[in-house]
Formats: sequence, C-alpha cells, structure tokens
Amino acid sequence: MSHNTFGHLFRITTWGESHGPALGVVVDGCPAGIPLSEEDIQPWLDRRRPGTSRHVTPRQEADRVRILSGTFEDERTGGPVTTGAPISLMIENTDVRSKDYDAIRDLWRPGHADYTYDAKYGLRDYRGGGRSSARETAARVAAGAIARKVIGDGVTVRGALVEMGGIAIDRSRWNWDGTLENPFFSPDPDVVPEWERLLDSLRTEGSSTGAVVEIVASGLPAGLGAPVYGKLDADLAGAMMSIPAVKGVEIGSGFDSARLRGEAAADEMRMGDVGPVFTSNHNGGVLGGISTGQDLVVRFAVKPTSSIRIDRMTLNRDFEETTISTRGRHDPCVGIRAVPVGEAMTAIVLADHWLRHAGQSAL
Amino acid sequence: MSHNTFGHLFRITTWGESHGPALGVVVDGCPAGIPLSEEDIQPWLDRRRPGTSRHVTPRQEADRVRILSGTFEDERTGGPVTTGAPISLMIENTDVRSKDYDAIRDLWRPGHADYTYDAKYGLRDYRGGGRSSARETAARVAAGAIARKVIGDGVTVRGALVEMGGIAIDRSRWNWDGTLENPFFSPDPDVVPEWERLLDSLRTEGSSTGAVVEIVASGLPAGLGAPVYGKLDADLAGAMMSIPAVKGVEIGSGFDSARLRGEAAADEMRMGDVGPVFTSNHNGGVLGGISTGQDLVVRFAVKPTSSIRIDRMTLNRDFEETTISTRGRHDPCVGIRAVPVGEAMTAIVLADHWLRHAGQSAL
Amino acid sequence: MSHNTFGHLFRITTWGESHGPALGVVVDGCPAGIPLSEEDIQPWLDRRRPGTSRHVTPRQEADRVRILSGTFEDERTGGPVTTGAPISLMIENTDVRSKDYDAIRDLWRPGHADYTYDAKYGLRDYRGGGRSSARETAARVAAGAIARKVIGDGVTVRGALVEMGGIAIDRSRWNWDGTLENPFFSPDPDVVPEWERLLDSLRTEGSSTGAVVEIVASGLPAGLGAPVYGKLDADLAGAMMSIPAVKGVEIGSGFDSARLRGEAAADEMRMGDVGPVFTSNHNGGVLGGISTGQDLVVRFAVKPTSSIRIDRMTLNRDFEETTISTRGRHDPCVGIRAVPVGEAMTAIVLADHWLRHAGQSAL
Amino acid sequence: MSHNTFGHLFRITTWGESHGPALGVVVDGCPAGIPLSEEDIQPWLDRRRPGTSRHVTPRQEADRVRILSGTFEDERTGGPVTTGAPISLMIENTDVRSKDYDAIRDLWRPGHADYTYDAKYGLRDYRGGGRSSARETAARVAAGAIARKVIGDGVTVRGALVEMGGIAIDRSRWNWDGTLENPFFSPDPDVVPEWERLLDSLRTEGSSTGAVVEIVASGLPAGLGAPVYGKLDADLAGAMMSIPAVKGVEIGSGFDSARLRGEAAADEMRMGDVGPVFTSNHNGGVLGGISTGQDLVVRFAVKPTSSIRIDRMTLNRDFEETTISTRGRHDPCVGIRAVPVGEAMTAIVLADHWLRHAGQSAL
Repeated sequence: MSHNTFGHLFRITTWGESHGPALGVVVDGCPAGIPLSEEDIQPWLDRRRPGTSRHVTPRQEADRVRILSGTFEDERTGGPVTTGAPISLMIENTDVRSKDYDAIRDLWRPGHADYTYDAKYGLRDYRGGGRSSARETAARVAAGAIARKVIGDGVTVRGALVEMGGIAIDRSRWNWDGTLENPFFSPDPDVVPEWERLLDSLRTEGSSTGAVVEIVASGLPAGLGAPVYGKLDADLAGAMMSIPAVKGVEIGSGFDSARLRGEAAADEMRMGDVGPVFTSNHNGGVLGGISTGQDLVVRFAVKPTSSIRIDRMTLNRDFEETTISTRGRHDPCVGIRAVPVGEAMTAIVLADHWLRHAGQSAL
Repeated sequence: MSHNTFGHLFRITTWGESHGPALGVVVDGCPAGIPLSEEDIQPWLDRRRPGTSRHVTPRQEADRVRILSGTFEDERTGGPVTTGAPISLMIENTDVRSKDYDAIRDLWRPGHADYTYDAKYGLRDYRGGGRSSARETAARVAAGAIARKVIGDGVTVRGALVEMGGIAIDRSRWNWDGTLENPFFSPDPDVVPEWERLLDSLRTEGSSTGAVVEIVASGLPAGLGAPVYGKLDADLAGAMMSIPAVKGVEIGSGFDSARLRGEAAADEMRMGDVGPVFTSNHNGGVLGGISTGQDLVVRFAVKPTSSIRIDRMTLNRDFEETTISTRGRHDPCVGIRAVPVGEAMTAIVLADHWLRHAGQSAL
Repeated sequence: MSHNTFGHLFRITTWGESHGPALGVVVDGCPAGIPLSEEDIQPWLDRRRPGTSRHVTPRQEADRVRILSGTFEDERTGGPVTTGAPISLMIENTDVRSKDYDAIRDLWRPGHADYTYDAKYGLRDYRGGGRSSARETAARVAAGAIARKVIGDGVTVRGALVEMGGIAIDRSRWNWDGTLENPFFSPDPDVVPEWERLLDSLRTEGSSTGAVVEIVASGLPAGLGAPVYGKLDADLAGAMMSIPAVKGVEIGSGFDSARLRGEAAADEMRMGDVGPVFTSNHNGGVLGGISTGQDLVVRFAVKPTSSIRIDRMTLNRDFEETTISTRGRHDPCVGIRAVPVGEAMTAIVLADHWLRHAGQSAL
Repeated sequence: MSHNTFGHLFRITTWGESHGPALGVVVDGCPAGIPLSEEDIQPWLDRRRPGTSRHVTPRQEADRVRILSGTFEDERTGGPVTTGAPISLMIENTDVRSKDYDAIRDLWRPGHADYTYDAKYGLRDYRGGGRSSARETAARVAAGAIARKVIGDGVTVRGALVEMGGIAIDRSRWNWDGTLENPFFSPDPDVVPEWERLLDSLRTEGSSTGAVVEIVASGLPAGLGAPVYGKLDADLAGAMMSIPAVKGVEIGSGFDSARLRGEAAADEMRMGDVGPVFTSNHNGGVLGGISTGQDLVVRFAVKPTSSIRIDRMTLNRDFEETTISTRGRHDPCVGIRAVPVGEAMTAIVLADHWLRHAGQSAL
C-alpha cells in the first residue's frame, strides 16, 4: 500500500512538489532490452507542458526529463536500452514563483485540497498546491512514455477533448490528426473557435470551466485484463479518478448504458476476416474486466479550475470567515492539459496488464 | 497483486462460482475486540438476496452465512468478538440448476464475459457465469457488514436507486426510510409504480434495462483518505467499477461538474456550530482524495442485464455465427440488487481508509 | 499488506484456528488448465498429518481437504482442471479437545505467543494456540501441493531432517528415498535409532528438543528470481522464518560461509554437457537473488516444542508469578512435522517466481 | 509486487547503479511533522562510506545526500519537517572508474550475480556490478536514518561485527561504545588487532573473508509485529537476506536453539518493576512474530567478498572456459560495511511495524 505508487507489474512511484527543486518518478518492472532514451520521453512531456498557448498557464517550465538509472548501452547497437532495473526520471522545477502564494498561506482555497491536507496532516506545503498540485502529473506523463514502449507500436493510445464548458464536439467530424493541430486536443476542428471564444471570455472574467476528455486505445488483443477486483475497467476508473480535478469516469456508453434496453446494449458478435467483430461498442472494449479486442474507450469529467480571480467565501486556518480570490498563473480549463495525462494513465494501466498477459515483466 | 482481493489494511479475498458448492470471503485486518456474530451479517445479505420480489431473479437462495474463523468468546460478555485473526465467511449455494446452462455451453453470450474469459483462460465455468457471475457479490455484502462494524455507528452508508430505464426519481421527494419500503430501494415512493410498470412490461417482452445507483456516506470526519494514487474517490471509483455491469462512476456533481463555471463549482466554506460547513457539495465530500466531512456521494451506472430472452446474434466457440436467447432465471434490472453491493463496497473502502486514519488495524 | 497472505503472483491466504470448526486457504493466481483434484493434495497433507507415529502428537485429524472453488470439468478429459479463479480449500477440525486448555486460559506459556498476542490484541483464542497454532501449517501444505503443480514435474522439492537434539545425520549416507521410510524424514537411516531413543527419553521426561530441516529444490532453470528486495533467497528466508518455532535460516553454506576465504567460497564455473556447471554450491543455487540452475538449498532451525510437562516459571494475565506445565497432546520435536511445511513454503515461493518467469499467471 | 520496493506502511523504493550518475530512494509513508534535514541523514551515510580506513574499499565517495521532496518549513520553528509526501533522496556517484571493468565485460565473476543477471535479463550493466552492486545499500542507509526518526529516540538500533574470518569476539567484553572507536564496528576492543592482522594478510594475498553481524534493537514495546506471514522476525529475515552477500539469518539463539531442550529454551517470565521480565532471551525478543519487549536480536552471516585477485575458473559470455582475477577497488571483508546496512534494514522493518502499531502513517 503506497499512495504515491500506481500499478503492479509495471509500477510507478512519483515524488515531488510544485515548488520543490524537482519532481520525478521511479518506473519499476519495465522489461529489459527496450531501447529508451530521453528523446523517447520528452515529446510526451512537451505535449503536456505549460506555457504553450494563451489557453493554458503561462508558467514557463522546460520540463526537461533526465534518466538517472535503469538503462545501459546495448552491446549490439551501442544505444541505451532498459536493463530490468528501476528507471529513475527527474524533472527540475525552474519557473517557481513561490512569493505568489504567500497570500494563501493561511487560507483554504475552495475546491482545492488545502483544508483536507491540513485536516489529515496538520500542515501543508502551500506553495502552488505542494504535493496536491497537478504538476505531479508531469511525472505520470514521463512514465506513460515508457508504458507506451512496453505495449509497443501495435497499440495506440490517443486522447481528445470532447466537451468544454458544456460545448461538445460533433462526433461526425471526429479526426484524430486534428487533435495535434489545435491547443485543445480537439478532434473536431469546427468547435475550436467556439472554445477559444469561451476561454478568452472566461480569462477576462477571471473564471474557469470544466471539460470532458476521451481516451481511446486501439489495437488491443482480446483477453487483456482480469476478473473481479483486477478488472481493466476498474483499474482505469481508479487511474482516471486519481487525476486532479476528475469527478467522473465512464467506459463505453457509460451513464447512457443505464438508459438502454438489454437488446440495444448487447454488442452482438459476428465473424470478421481475422476474428470476431462486434456490431457496436457500448461496453467500450471490456467485458467482465477483460478486453474484447475492440477499441477501449474511457471518458472522464474534469471540474473547472478552482483557482479563480472571482471572490469566493472561505475560512482561514484560524477558522475565521473571509474571502479569497486566487491570482498566480492558472489554466482556465485544467481539462485541456488533462488529455495527455489521461493518455499516460491509460498506457500505464495497459502496460501493467500487458506484462501479466505477455509474461515479460522485469519483476 | 491479486484479482480476488480488495483493500489494504481492511482487505477482502473472495472465492466461489455461481454453481459451485459454496462461495465465501476471507476478511483480513479487522481489529480485535469487535462484537461479531452471524446475526450481524445476515440482515445485509437478506437485503441483497434473490427471490424477494417478482422484480428480481426467482432463484431461491437462503444465503445463510457461516463464520468459520476469527471470532472468540469475549471474556467479559461471553459473546463472540473478533480476535484480529482472519474472518472466514462461507455461504452455500443451494438452488443450483446447472442444467439451464447446457444450452450456452458453447456460445458466447453478448454483453457477458464468456468470450473474454475464453480468450484469457482458454476455458470457462459456463454454469451461471461461473466466477464472473454477480453471485460473487454476496461475498462482498457479507464483508461489507463487517466493514460497517469497523467504521462504527457514527457513519451511515446508505444506497438508493435514483434512475431506472431512463426514469429518474424526483430528488425533492427524497426519503431514506422509503428505500426500505419498496423492492427497488427507491428514495422516492412516487416513482415506484412507474418502475413496476416498466419492469412488468420488460419481463413480458423478455428484455431488461439499466439503472443508476447512488451511495451516500454520512458522518465522516474530515481528513479521511489520502493523496495521489490512494485517493478516497479513486478507490471508490475502482470499487464501483469492479461491480458486475457497472459502466460509469461519479463523485458529487460528477459529469455535470464539467459544465460548471469555477465560481459555481467552488464549495464555499463558512464556519458552523461545530466546525467548517460548505455552501454546496459539488465535490461529493472529497477534495484532493481526502474527505471534507460533508456527505460522501458516489453514483454509478449499471447497464441492462445481458441475459435476455430476445434473440441476439453471436458466435459459438468454433467461431460460427448463430443467435442466442437466454432463458434461466435473471433479474430484469441488475441495478436493483446492485444497491446493497454498492453500499458494501463503499463501506469496505471506508473501513480500509478508516484503519489508516484511526491506526487500529489488526495488520 | 496482509498478515495472512503470502506471495504475489501465486498467493495464498490462510484462515482458521486450531480449535475452530475448520481451517483453509484461498490460492489465487494459479494458471488455468492445470488438472487438479483433492487426490492431488491429500497425500501431501497425509505426510504432515498428526497421529502417524508415537513421535508426533497423538491428536487424530483426518485432515481431509475439500476443494470449494476454482476447478471445472475439462471439456476434453472430463476431469477437473483449474480455471484461473481462486481455489478455496477447506479442512475441517475434527479432534478438538478444547477442555485441555482451560488450565492455560489465564496463563502465558513461555516460548509461546500467548503473552505477545495479549499484548497486541488484548485478547486471544487460547484453545490450542488459536491462530498461532502450528495447525495453520496444514493450509500451507495443501497450498504447496498446488504450487508443485504450477512448477511442474521437472522441479522436485524435497525436505529432510538433518539434525535433532544436536545429533546430526552423516551426509555421506544421504538417501532421499530413505526420507520416506522413517517417521523423521531422515535421509540417513543409521541415525534413526539414535533419534528414536532420544525422543523416547524426552517423552518420558516430559521435555522436548529442536531440529534442523533442509529443503532442496532440483531442476530449476537459471534466471529464476529477482534482484534487490525480491530475491529468491530473501523470499525463502521470510517464508521459512514465518513457520512457527523457526529461529534461523541459511542458504547454501550459510553461516559457514562467514568462515571461508574468498577463493574457497567462489563456486567456480566450468562448461558441462548442456550448460554451465559449478565446482561447488556454497551459494545454495542463488546468486544476486536469482537461481544459478544448481540445487537450491535452504536450511532452517526449529526450536524445541515450548509445550512441555516440566514446570516453568511464568505469569498469569493479572501479572502474578506462577508456574506452568503443559499437558495436552504435543509433538516432542515440532521440527519433524516442519519438514513437509518447509517443502510447501519452498514450493510456494518457487511457484510465485515461476509465474513471473514463465508469464503464465492467472492474475 | 516490486523488486525495488521494501516495506508496507513505511516503504522505500531504491534506484540506481554503481556507475550511473546517481542513486537514490523514495521513502513513502513517513508521518507528517517530523523534523528532517540532510544533517539527520548524513552521519549514517558517513558510517557506511567507503574509503574511511585501509580495511575497506579505497573508492572515494562523498556520499552527500540531497532531499528533493517531502519536507517543508515548520511554521513554528521555521526548520524543515516532513509533510506526509514522499521523501526523495539522491546521492550522486562521483568516483566512478568504469574503465576498471572493461576486463570483466564478457566474463561471469564467480560468486557474483553476473551469470544470473545475464540468464534473467539477457544483458547486464557490468560496470561495478550495476544494479547488483552493494552500492545500492547507500540508499538503504539513507532511508534507515528516516526510519530511526519514525521509531523515535526511545528505541535504539545498534550493530556490531561479532565474528570475522572465523575469529569471534569475546562476548564478556561487549561494549557498545567500542563499536564507534574501531573501523570494524567491533564491540570487543581486544579482537581488533587480530582482525587487523587478518585483513592485512588477506589484502596482501588478494583474498577476502566473511563475517557475522549482530543487530540489537532495544526499547521496543511488547506487541509490535504480527502473526503468520507478517511476523517481525520473518520480515527481518527477508530484509537481512536481501543485503548483498548475506547467506544466513538468525533470531535470538538461532541455530543453537535446535540443540536445546524445551526447558532450557523457554524464556521464563517473572514480574519486574515496570512489567514482565524474562530469565533469558533465546527467542531474541520475538514470540509468534510479535515483540516481547526484550531486546530484539538479529544475526546474519556475510560471505567473503567475491572479487578477489586470486585466479578462479569461470566462463565467458560465449560459454568458453577461462579464468578471472578481479582488480578494481574492493573491500576485503564486505561484512564490515554491512553493519550499518543491517542496522538500517532493522530500523526500516521496525518503522514499518511501528506505523501499524501506532497508527501514525502518512499513508
């Protein structure tokens, strides 16, 4: 039991605070012999990096990842490969402006973990949210890059923002390549101007909004996962809900399933060219906790950023009533940068089950 | 890593198949000195028991629980108390009609785990779904009764059916006592006739429907839970998604949070008579994975029963196309009996965190 | 973390007290498709069974094992095979004479866990030692039989008593078959009469003695095990020390290694017909926590039975000084019946590592 | 399951290779509010540091530890205290001479993990033993310093070398303070000159020798530990056997227990001034896996350093027969520097059980 470790055969242990000297992750269980260098990880970190558009926090973090252990020169290629030893990754924090946080030192910000950390621990590192900061998710994204190498090129894990501030994409226009071409990871290019207007307006007003993220993993074999308490979908639900600000998770048709009749919800089976195919995917690629071979579809809801400039009522640490408005540098919609985090957590869950399936773990 | 074990300090390991001789659970970590007899567990099992109304499966199971270990006479009262040793509970299967299942021996039932178990294990116990049967949840409910004793009478964990077949309750009529007075655990008595008509009609047609269940835990202290990967809400999400047929989980306002603005989503804090109070509960009683002291609110979506009498297309184990209609004895809405299961899993998650919080575990 | 669970991919959870209605074990992670019936388990239990000679406790326990879950008819042979689901085994306690223990209800027996259980839990099931009784090891032996099936016939795990009451075997007379032909599991037939005289004398005097057990696993591949904290020898050390009354564990030359010079301790390597061979086995078949392919050699020391008829000074639960002499039915040398338990724990550790190595786990 | 993680509620995850840029450890579960700075850790690392006398390796490592996360200024004192977040410690490798190892790149050193790592992983970082190097134990010692803070000043954990090359100390001269005054951690000053002569001679000859280390923890309460598979002594046995080169572990009288009669082995109980006292401590302070309140006594055997200058027969990676003699910079008796490592592992095991006992974990 560890609250900073996730996974079993492929497992990550993250550490670090928003305003500490660095953050990092130890990845354990990665099989030996996989080519791995910092160049394999950095692009995924860049995808999540702050400061890349006016729609995310202007905090400037290079987020350069460094591999401190677990790789060694391959005797054939001379390039670095994994050795089966734990892979330690470190990212230094460079643009830290802790002074910004003096004002909230003794206040509990509504919607943040300030009050609950104080209740549990009796103290908290208030600078940028300390350990509860979404900055911890950089370590997840770095680990996710290694998870992707474990599951291999045959499986793709992609994410998209499918709704923001109540404005949903049009699924008939879904285009995965499009997610790489706008700052929102939107698969529907036509919704982008609407979202831009929404965010510009929210930023002006000092407010924020929520979003819905969808992650799809394609190319999975049937038979990945496990029954009862090790279900692929149960692991994914826990993984997604562990991302800061997430308040709901769905697999396949999710809550809409509750409104279907049995005959509509059944994903009927037919025989395709290379194996079973299904007439629909209400179950999101999982039955009984085990993959069907269809696309794995996970969706999660992200609440609006709690740090807003609009005054909210709160208490200070002496239990006195007061109000707060948060300055600092914040994403008006944390759901955007949650896309690469959701992808990473999905890849990590899949890598964990993959190693059980394939029997290749270094552990 | 175990797929049949759930929890850390309070942990359950379940075993048994739908049509085996018995099923059971080993509960480990329960503190010593808690009064516990079969009478403390049986009422919760009766709540989930099949055959109690025309709206659930007519399978007749007494579901009598037997305590095989872990309790001993208290020297003061003479009554049985827990000793800190593992508590083994067993429930015999009595009304097993495996013949019903010969017809599906070589077919994969759409929406069931038949195909995926075969893909993973190369074989499956097809009688009543074997290990993937919802019958396994009887063991969870039995363990949940012990979890309730661990967290004590100060915390209540209650569940309700809040939507069935797209027909939602009216929340203004919410009445917890009402959930004990109708076969649907509905907190809104006025929706009951509508649901009865729906189920009667579905039963006639041989179809089924889905439902939404809400679990509320009241009386929690602030500070229960943990950060990052041990979040109370992440554990609950995994727990609920591990219940058969569940496809979505929400905490507090859940997916609706994604449509809120930051100032609306903030649960503002005021000072009450005995401590902080909140102006709303969009966060469902959890911030940063740790309880706020408000009601903990979890909601989950249950898909329609996959076993229906209406013909569906499928394959047999030789990958030949065919159709299937399932006879046997099935619940037209498995969401109903999921209510006590959701309560039990919530109590188990809470007991697990409770022991860390209170430092009382037998482990 | 569970104190009644052992193992990771192959894992056992035991339950039950010495004088409760039954004891048992849930075995999780056993791959699907392995033929398994009660007949595969019973002979190993019989090997450990009490009442088989005058040198062990006269308690009469049939120790009949019952498989309650996890197997199903194989469609080809019709015989039962594992399904990947948890295997629940139960053994009923039949010859329970709890009255024998009334006298020790309020006394702490020196050398037993009576005082420490009271210190930890505030109460204890004093009948026959309750949970701390060596009777729990019946469940380990039953699980060990399944572990043996997992690692297959190519690996043999055998145990022998190599020393009793300070009288050691003559290793030049080592004969594995001999261990099946005397009540001591002695590989040296010539030591048997000496040991018999010793035990007869101890029994008359109401005393007891200790012993040393050696377990050897042959046929292992090189490469089984893992580094650092998952070392094969570290797991074995923990496993052996968890057996009641064990006070020391050695691998290979063990404590004698501390007296060797580097050049003597080195197990030099030569090339044999089918792979590397070694000139000696001081390391007991493990280097860096990973198997070398040589025999795996584990030895453990068992202290004398603490329940003796000779008066010893002790305290009662009111902290008053008194004396105790234990009647009941006890083994004069618990080391004898520790042989099959040591074998079982070795097989369980090997099965756990085997599944990681072979990638076949049901988990 | 992780091979680089140890512990449950207090748990450490180590990473790093002998010749990588750095090594480190993430300590999870440390309660919040404990004063902790690098000054609390450094002295323990210095105790284990190479290059401190002619009797240990001349490798020059400053072994400066850096705290990267998990502490924050205490609002009262201004000094750093733990926050409940994971504590990441890093030690840079500075005196790395990898060239020394080119000669062994393709050879398997007898007694080392070279062959077994190749067998398991198909490759290995051969520089200084890579991950299998005893250099990893620096991270354990750093984590042990934090474990000591968790169990507090009331418990002392001390280690001593009690035998080297077959020359044992005289226990009648035992003096704990003396262990700080000689390079061997010997509690018997009179044995020191003998050991010096032995080591000088071995160094000249290019040989090495083994040793026995004893760790004693004083001041423990009764009731610490747990039954069955979570026994304090089972955890200690696994912990000690995980230290490189350890081949045997004993608790209390250990293997000598096997030669005792029951009445001699019983640690009889009397009433002392403040609670129960015992007439002896053959059980080494543990009964049934739970502490008695006496001194906890653990002893372990360390084999001779495998890297010696004397030619030994071996194979190369092409399975060709050859000989090897290892140059590099090695300890002639690795048992010496195992003393602080054994202390650290004992403190870590105790901290893990302590948190369960006291209910203070951050987890």
